[in-house]
Amino acid sequence: MAEEVLLLDFWPSPFGMRVRIALREKGLEYESWEEDLSNKSPLLLKMNPVHKQIPVLIHKGRPVCESLVILQYIDEVWPHVSPLLPTDPYQRANARFWADYVDKKIYSTGRLVWGATGDTQEAAKKELINCFETLEGELGDKAYFGGDKFGLVDMSLIPFYSWFYALETSANFSMVEECPKLVAWAKRCMQRESVSKSLPDQYKVYDFLLELRKKLQNQPHH
Amino acid sequence: MAEEVLLLDFWPSPFGMRVRIALREKGLEYESWEEDLSNKSPLLLKMNPVHKQIPVLIHKGRPVCESLVILQYIDEVWPHVSPLLPTDPYQRANARFWADYVDKKIYSTGRLVWGATGDTQEAAKKELINCFETLEGELGDKAYFGGDKFGLVDMSLIPFYSWFYALETSANFSMVEECPKLVAWAKRCMQRESVSKSLPDQYKVYDFLLELRKKLQNQPHH
Repeated sequence: MAEEVLLLDFWPSPFGMRVRIALREKGLEYESWEEDLSNKSPLLLKMNPVHKQIPVLIHKGRPVCESLVILQYIDEVWPHVSPLLPTDPYQRANARFWADYVDKKIYSTGRLVWGATGDTQEAAKKELINCFETLEGELGDKAYFGGDKFGLVDMSLIPFYSWFYALETSANFSMVEECPKLVAWAKRCMQRESVSKSLPDQYKVYDFLLELRKKLQNQPHH
Repeated sequence: MAEEVLLLDFWPSPFGMRVRIALREKGLEYESWEEDLSNKSPLLLKMNPVHKQIPVLIHKGRPVCESLVILQYIDEVWPHVSPLLPTDPYQRANARFWADYVDKKIYSTGRLVWGATGDTQEAAKKELINCFETLEGELGDKAYFGGDKFGLVDMSLIPFYSWFYALETSANFSMVEECPKLVAWAKRCMQRESVSKSLPDQYKVYDFLLELRKKLQNQPHH
């Protein structure tokens, strides 16, 4: 607790994973508090009264919310080790643009691929593959989205790798067939300890999502 | 054109207005290209192939897309005049959090207030007023969201002032009754030339939205 960093987190959350990766990239020690999202802690409600969502980074008692805001905060407070953003303004804008793209597209579309059935699921699957292809186009032949260095866009996107098996199984497609370059990039990212230590096992995420679906189906309709 | 800045814009767009305000705050000369969104220019499609949306800032031939990304780019390229973000990392995170809040909530909810009817409209109206109240809470007794200085959050939110009359008329409520502090803040912002020159007249926006609604209603259903 040298830096007094506490992370309110939930293990299958891609947004929580982003922050775990960033903290590890910076070599920061931190405490983690696992939230029960069906029974949110008074601390979470106090620290993020607007969205009431994890992740929340509490640094010296003050909360920072929203994963992309947290990543930039971490980069600005601890700028010297593993910069997450490049220094050139145009490259920074490009990184922010693609991190925002991931934020707007992947989670909401992925959730439909997992949660919907029939035509809705089929349309969501096409849309998701389309998004991944767009990202592959931006990646091109680079090692990481920003070039040689693992950075903000990689960190925003790689958590969804832990959802690939659940998405593929649910909607019957193969990521390695559809987007081989993106899968190669994901495996490259997974060789970093900051990533592999922060992402849960794909089968564990799958089991979690199955349980969640069962619970939601058994709930009375509103 | 000293700085070679071209803005692809559309006059009633709150997102375009943000960029106009930022460029004026920085005292930059720029050219503006008005897009016809029903017949987008080849330049727009080339410069923003991912979202195909305005605003796009083209600086020395290179495009920057998404209004909040553009504002931060402008601030980083021209940091010395009227900084849009504070220097303290915690205050920067707070500004990014609230700009993101405006981005996620106001436009989508406002569009429902304008476009929906009956219960859906009523629910959207409550939600919108709720969002404005949350923003009023964050504003508190400060002159601007960041304190004494007009900045990123003000710039993200103030464009919606030009939509107030349309929203109020459409859903039968009064912003000054619901959120008097926010209206006082808006009038304070409007005293800045950067803002008053960048926002269209409320009645002109209302007429535009009426015309748009007529067009959409006359379109064949898909």
